[in-house]
Amino acid sequence: MNKRIIVNFIGKIMVTEAILMLPALLVALIYGEGDAKGFLVTIIPTAIIGLILTFIKQSQKRMSSRDGYFIVAAAWIIISLIGAFPLYLNGGFDSYWNALFEMVSGFTTTGASVLDRPEDLKHGVLFWRSFSHWIGGMGVLVFVMMVMPMENDNSMHLVRAEVPGPTAGKLVPRMRTTSMILYGIYTAMTMFLIVLLLFFGMNPFDSFCIAFGTAGTGGFGVSAAGIGGYNSLAIEIILGIFMLLFGVNFNAYHLILLKKYKEAFSSEEIKAYFWIVFVSVVAIACNIVHFAGGIGNAFRQAFFQVSSIITTTGFATVDFEKWPEFSKHLLILLMLIGACAGSTGGGMKVSRVLILVKSFVAEIRQTINPKEIITVRLNGKPVDRKTLSSTRIYAASYLLLVCVFTLIVSLDGLDFTTNFSAVMACFNNIGPGLHLVGPMSNFSVYSDWIQVVLSIAMLTGRLEIFPMFLLFAKSAHDR
Amino acid sequence: MNKRIIVNFIGKIMVTEAILMLPALLVALIYGEGDAKGFLVTIIPTAIIGLILTFIKQSQKRMSSRDGYFIVAAAWIIISLIGAFPLYLNGGFDSYWNALFEMVSGFTTTGASVLDRPEDLKHGVLFWRSFSHWIGGMGVLVFVMMVMPMENDNSMHLVRAEVPGPTAGKLVPRMRTTSMILYGIYTAMTMFLIVLLLFFGMNPFDSFCIAFGTAGTGGFGVSAAGIGGYNSLAIEIILGIFMLLFGVNFNAYHLILLKKYKEAFSSEEIKAYFWIVFVSVVAIACNIVHFAGGIGNAFRQAFFQVSSIITTTGFATVDFEKWPEFSKHLLILLMLIGACAGSTGGGMKVSRVLILVKSFVAEIRQTINPKEIITVRLNGKPVDRKTLSSTRIYAASYLLLVCVFTLIVSLDGLDFTTNFSAVMACFNNIGPGLHLVGPMSNFSVYSDWIQVVLSIAMLTGRLEIFPMFLLFAKSAHDR
Repeated sequence: MNKRIIVNFIGKIMVTEAILMLPALLVALIYGEGDAKGFLVTIIPTAIIGLILTFIKQSQKRMSSRDGYFIVAAAWIIISLIGAFPLYLNGGFDSYWNALFEMVSGFTTTGASVLDRPEDLKHGVLFWRSFSHWIGGMGVLVFVMMVMPMENDNSMHLVRAEVPGPTAGKLVPRMRTTSMILYGIYTAMTMFLIVLLLFFGMNPFDSFCIAFGTAGTGGFGVSAAGIGGYNSLAIEIILGIFMLLFGVNFNAYHLILLKKYKEAFSSEEIKAYFWIVFVSVVAIACNIVHFAGGIGNAFRQAFFQVSSIITTTGFATVDFEKWPEFSKHLLILLMLIGACAGSTGGGMKVSRVLILVKSFVAEIRQTINPKEIITVRLNGKPVDRKTLSSTRIYAASYLLLVCVFTLIVSLDGLDFTTNFSAVMACFNNIGPGLHLVGPMSNFSVYSDWIQVVLSIAMLTGRLEIFPMFLLFAKSAHDR
Repeated sequence: MNKRIIVNFIGKIMVTEAILMLPALLVALIYGEGDAKGFLVTIIPTAIIGLILTFIKQSQKRMSSRDGYFIVAAAWIIISLIGAFPLYLNGGFDSYWNALFEMVSGFTTTGASVLDRPEDLKHGVLFWRSFSHWIGGMGVLVFVMMVMPMENDNSMHLVRAEVPGPTAGKLVPRMRTTSMILYGIYTAMTMFLIVLLLFFGMNPFDSFCIAFGTAGTGGFGVSAAGIGGYNSLAIEIILGIFMLLFGVNFNAYHLILLKKYKEAFSSEEIKAYFWIVFVSVVAIACNIVHFAGGIGNAFRQAFFQVSSIITTTGFATVDFEKWPEFSKHLLILLMLIGACAGSTGGGMKVSRVLILVKSFVAEIRQTINPKEIITVRLNGKPVDRKTLSSTRIYAASYLLLVCVFTLIVSLDGLDFTTNFSAVMACFNNIGPGLHLVGPMSNFSVYSDWIQVVLSIAMLTGRLEIFPMFLLFAKSAHDR
């Protein structure tokens, strides 16, 4: 491995994180609740150590694809370890591990919390917690690439490891420009959402935090009452729509900007995504109509919850734990599917599900006509062998890992529904699960060490399995 | 499709089933409880219609691989539909659908029951129910092939569709001889088990029924008390060992018969299978030591239950529903893994799990060394592309189907643990699940139509997904 390049990068990441903490420090100073100190004692050493590391001279050697995976995995672990300090130092968390869980949950845009009442936190901390969703949503390394110049080949390795989905797309040949376009769209949409929320009467602090949670499809709220607490139909609808929009592949927005409308709307993944949402909303609305008291309310509740779960945001306006079993089962299925590739959402991704379903159909057709060559097509083009194979390996690894994580988590002695849904909620970066970790409960039911295990599950899910495992791979195969 | 060959085959299968019902008729006549009539009114028309169908002249055209899949799927459905009549006609079941569920559960060697007290059934029916495990264990078509001459190519298509595992092995070049060897070993082992059970004091009727349930890794008992009711350590140990033996790939026994001991014991799958059993027994024994009252008892209970679940038999000597959560979670994992390919057991099969785990490791190594060609090896030989790809598709399809079945089953309004474990138990042909379908409960909690859905799940699982779906595939692709 190229150690110099890795150390240099970690330095860059630390400096970036120190800079990204400044807005939270500012909020802390404005509200003057004494949390500024916690931020300062984190920011200053992080910035200094980071700067020192960046002065280490880079070798001329190119980064290998393994280095890319390694940097991404290491970067996410380090920013979480550092980011948890202000949370821990300012109180509200029982242990550093609790705070780490919350921070990993933030950066991975999971939104699972160990807090009963987030409103008891100080404003700076609350802001940092939500801001981490926004940073994590589009990717930390993508951000670093945007602000710091880097060789194009090197950045491609990082993008491949960090951006979710079966294939990593470059919007334009230069990765740095791609990062800028992505962050540009992301920022513009977030700003627009903040303005809308302000317009419909949300206070400025909440507007920022909730918009960060929506944009990153994270799901941290600012109070135990959640989105239901605002008691506003307009806010519910706006958030429901924006969650869905942030779950769309960002390539589509880029195409719209380029006025290539036809291409933008022809993506099979996006069509399938909206169909799944539509069918699920209708099915759940019919199923909960008695529970919700009327068809209008049923649709309102179904739309918000479906939008929140499929995009893996995890906001809730009702306690869906009390819904009929069919609706709950359907929500678990949506958790698994997740949003589109190349969006800020988590889960398996709609395009992967499409490829898997199509592979299944193709396998049946192949058995019928053994001599014909049957290809799996997406957007009219055949899916290449490598993508097909890696998608299947991904699904199989997903199955293996969910089993292993559930087994480990069961050591805390909670029931199967809780454990399984907790692992699904963390691994797919959703937030709430069912039963003891349902939308009106939190993850403090688990012991510290299981929280660490679930943190690893969140990171593994966010980075789509392989980077995390490469960290532990034998260096004997090292070149 | 080659309709003549299919119809001719279905005739053969019906005749075979009529013959296979004769032992049960004999038992009914011996006990004289009035159930002989129910068997006669099933056997006579089945035999007559079957004979008429076999007189339809076969075309000279060879069977296609699709015909093979079609025949296997149709055969399993037809024998279940017919086999359910004696159960339904002799009382004890609320509806024909209940009886059908029980029969599908019998032939697929699932062993899930809708009965509170099997001992209330008449002896002929009880015998038929257990005998169906024995027939289904090694395969109905494999049996037909043994008794009726057939072209070698045609039989290969049937074996590929019916025998579980990622690759269908021929023991000897002629399929008919292979069938004979397999059934020979199977019969000899079953007889040996019956003798052992008789020797240790089990009555003759129970010995036969329990041996059938063990050999087919089915799991139907003859009384609500189950295996625990015999209150005999010897019987528990014998059954524990025999379940494991019937879960081993039968190729190994053939190799032992040929005195190729080294080859027989070098199979990676069999080694992994025994390792998984060993580790699980130790882990569960440690976990339940307080529950079982002593380390000896803990090992006794853990060994029997692990052996029963991994081989997908489904016998139980304790109510593992009351075990600590970790042990229950581990049992669910064992359900998923299942026994060896080419055995009478169900589940995903150890060899598939091995291939998946190795693919996962290979993918990581490939990412580290993109230029190296990394192959997945099993038993020292590289696994071919086709097996690799079909194993991954199988895992992905498995994931999709478990999701879909669980969602449908949830319409009955039961909880997630019950539904998910019921689908796992049926799909993997195990028998008992957890919570409301735990080892001391039964599947009568589900409505008739969900029982039909679960019957489809059992057949889909037994035939390893694809044959069942080919039944519904568009005939437009027909050749």
